[in-house]
Amino acid sequence: MYDKMFSEDVGSFFRSPVREIFKRVDLNAIYSFAGGYPSADTFPLEEIRQTMSEVIGKYGGQAFQYGATQGVMQLREAVADRYGVPVERVQITSSSQQGIDVCTRVLVDPGDVILTSSPSYLGALQSFRSYRADIRGVAHLTGIDAFCRAYEDTIAGVKAEGKKIKFLYMIPDFQNPSGESLTLEERKILVALARKYGFLIVEDSPYRELRYEGEPVPTMYSIDPDVVIHLGSFSKIFAPGFRLGWAIAHPDILDKIYVCKQSLDLCPPVFDQYVAAEFLRSGRLDANLSASIELYKGKRDLLLSLLEQYMPSGVRWTHPEGGLFLFLTMPEGFDAVKFYDKALDAGVAYVAGEFFHPDGSGKNTMRMNFSFMSRQRIVEGVKLLADLLSREL
Amino acid sequence: MYDKMFSEDVGSFFRSPVREIFKRVDLNAIYSFAGGYPSADTFPLEEIRQTMSEVIGKYGGQAFQYGATQGVMQLREAVADRYGVPVERVQITSSSQQGIDVCTRVLVDPGDVILTSSPSYLGALQSFRSYRADIRGVAHLTGIDAFCRAYEDTIAGVKAEGKKIKFLYMIPDFQNPSGESLTLEERKILVALARKYGFLIVEDSPYRELRYEGEPVPTMYSIDPDVVIHLGSFSKIFAPGFRLGWAIAHPDILDKIYVCKQSLDLCPPVFDQYVAAEFLRSGRLDANLSASIELYKGKRDLLLSLLEQYMPSGVRWTHPEGGLFLFLTMPEGFDAVKFYDKALDAGVAYVAGEFFHPDGSGKNTMRMNFSFMSRQRIVEGVKLLADLLSREL
Repeated sequence: MYDKMFSEDVGSFFRSPVREIFKRVDLNAIYSFAGGYPSADTFPLEEIRQTMSEVIGKYGGQAFQYGATQGVMQLREAVADRYGVPVERVQITSSSQQGIDVCTRVLVDPGDVILTSSPSYLGALQSFRSYRADIRGVAHLTGIDAFCRAYEDTIAGVKAEGKKIKFLYMIPDFQNPSGESLTLEERKILVALARKYGFLIVEDSPYRELRYEGEPVPTMYSIDPDVVIHLGSFSKIFAPGFRLGWAIAHPDILDKIYVCKQSLDLCPPVFDQYVAAEFLRSGRLDANLSASIELYKGKRDLLLSLLEQYMPSGVRWTHPEGGLFLFLTMPEGFDAVKFYDKALDAGVAYVAGEFFHPDGSGKNTMRMNFSFMSRQRIVEGVKLLADLLSREL
Repeated sequence: MYDKMFSEDVGSFFRSPVREIFKRVDLNAIYSFAGGYPSADTFPLEEIRQTMSEVIGKYGGQAFQYGATQGVMQLREAVADRYGVPVERVQITSSSQQGIDVCTRVLVDPGDVILTSSPSYLGALQSFRSYRADIRGVAHLTGIDAFCRAYEDTIAGVKAEGKKIKFLYMIPDFQNPSGESLTLEERKILVALARKYGFLIVEDSPYRELRYEGEPVPTMYSIDPDVVIHLGSFSKIFAPGFRLGWAIAHPDILDKIYVCKQSLDLCPPVFDQYVAAEFLRSGRLDANLSASIELYKGKRDLLLSLLEQYMPSGVRWTHPEGGLFLFLTMPEGFDAVKFYDKALDAGVAYVAGEFFHPDGSGKNTMRMNFSFMSRQRIVEGVKLLADLLSREL
């Protein structure tokens, strides 16, 4: 009855793969390597309760009133201090997913090109599609010349078509889904390309602080603060239930995001912002983050050793230095979407890699999360999945 | 430097009147009749603290994890029970502003027509413009025949242009900005028109439960649940700092909203939803609401009597039976936008009525809020404003 009423604008967007993945899944009833959920063990309940009580005492009714569209000043200042940027460059978002959406909304007209790595984050691709962006995925080639050429070639192709590239979307740290990071050299090349060809970079970095080995690499934003919009999130370093993130960008860009955000939801959740600000200021966030990193490092190491032990030959995987995911590649011809039904029937879930590829390639890949389940369930889940794969390959 | 990078799509939308109104205003430093803020006196701090502690005890980590895109089931059920609708028709939104935005996003293509009353809510008009909707305002004429004819004529005009009406946006209860409500007969007429001409109605009703006199009128949703999307909000009956509202609609419509919401921000704030659900279930919300109604009724009565006492002749105003606003009409030729600078210099703020009129008419009108300020400040503010107006008129 409503079919003719919906916007054509969103088109194929309404066929949501994420929805298909999760609608049949009760995360606690199966072995789920599917979601990007942090472990609930990392949420410091008593410290949160204490902080909430302090916020009510300190701010009273102000903590429950409407707040500024840019975010509560205390939280903007805490983010600005933590990341060494001026406070006028900080906009608080109602989740970093909103950061992605709002950047696309203020920058992209239908048909405009967005460059991404391929694979890239599914939720970003979904948002880009909803604005009818023309998404061009670029494979991450090894070797700096090949890496650079892949982007140059794609950009040249877009220019030849007379189309406009609005931004490059990148997750440089422990990428979702691959778990891989960009080297400093690669970051510099991409920033230089943005300057050269006049597009922006949306640097989405929700996992950046979850590093288990190696040294931090400078953000793309720090390399050139005027062509990069940096998106961050409290979901992985504090708790996703607060739905809080931030965008760091040139004030002229934040100015447009402000107006857009006003029309989206007026302001981010106010009480939650005060809690996050107090949690940061008091040092509780850092203490808790250290514990989370220990926990996740152990789970990553466990998953890597289990894959080594149980996976059939012909299966390869990435070695993430941080974050929540690693990425499996099965032999050519394997179809992870088809296989998903079998896996789910057997009680184990993942996300098929195809959904992360803008061009629908990567059929023989899958993303595995290692943060959500307990160690015991990771062991059982890998054994189950490896057993199913052994029979399939 | 960024001018060519922004979306053309949002166009004039970026010149936000709301922003202009509020950017120079420190709400506590002036007499503000401008915002739509509830009184911070209505936020029951100790009961909220208690409820938060209970939620942490009862739900543990689940209250801080990602939640369902449709909203937390406990809150959906509480809303469904309260308003007598099936739970599968309830979507929790991250504020009712998001409800407006998401309805527009799933329904409207550029150039599609949205009907509204004129005047209508500024934040809705801003959202509609951001999707390049063609907004047609219809004046609220007195007398049922005139009322009906105004809508029929507008609809006929749109049809003659070959354009498609996607929905009628209405605030039937204590409208923002006018404070006026639709009669049952008027509601029935609009619902019948929607059926007849094949468009939907977005019924935005954030003030519905703030009634100070008279009997509740049935919602438009209750008259025809399949052509009406009903939007509600916790901002006026609990606290705006939680940024929570709801959409009640046919499941086929919610299905599209689900996918859109996933791409907007994944899910509403989770902890806040549990708190709202507990607050509702425990009866605390209703007890607190009764106190808020008492408080606001007193402020409305005060404002009405002050206007009577101090306003110069030639100024008229509405008599709202509930809500947060009343609407002033000055003599023809008065310009409330121009006058605003004078008022602000003198220390008193309002919102010029012109911003609520899709066609830019209503220059001699202004909206006054009576919920936010203390009684003492309402008295002082009205005296100041009336004095300024007396010298102007």
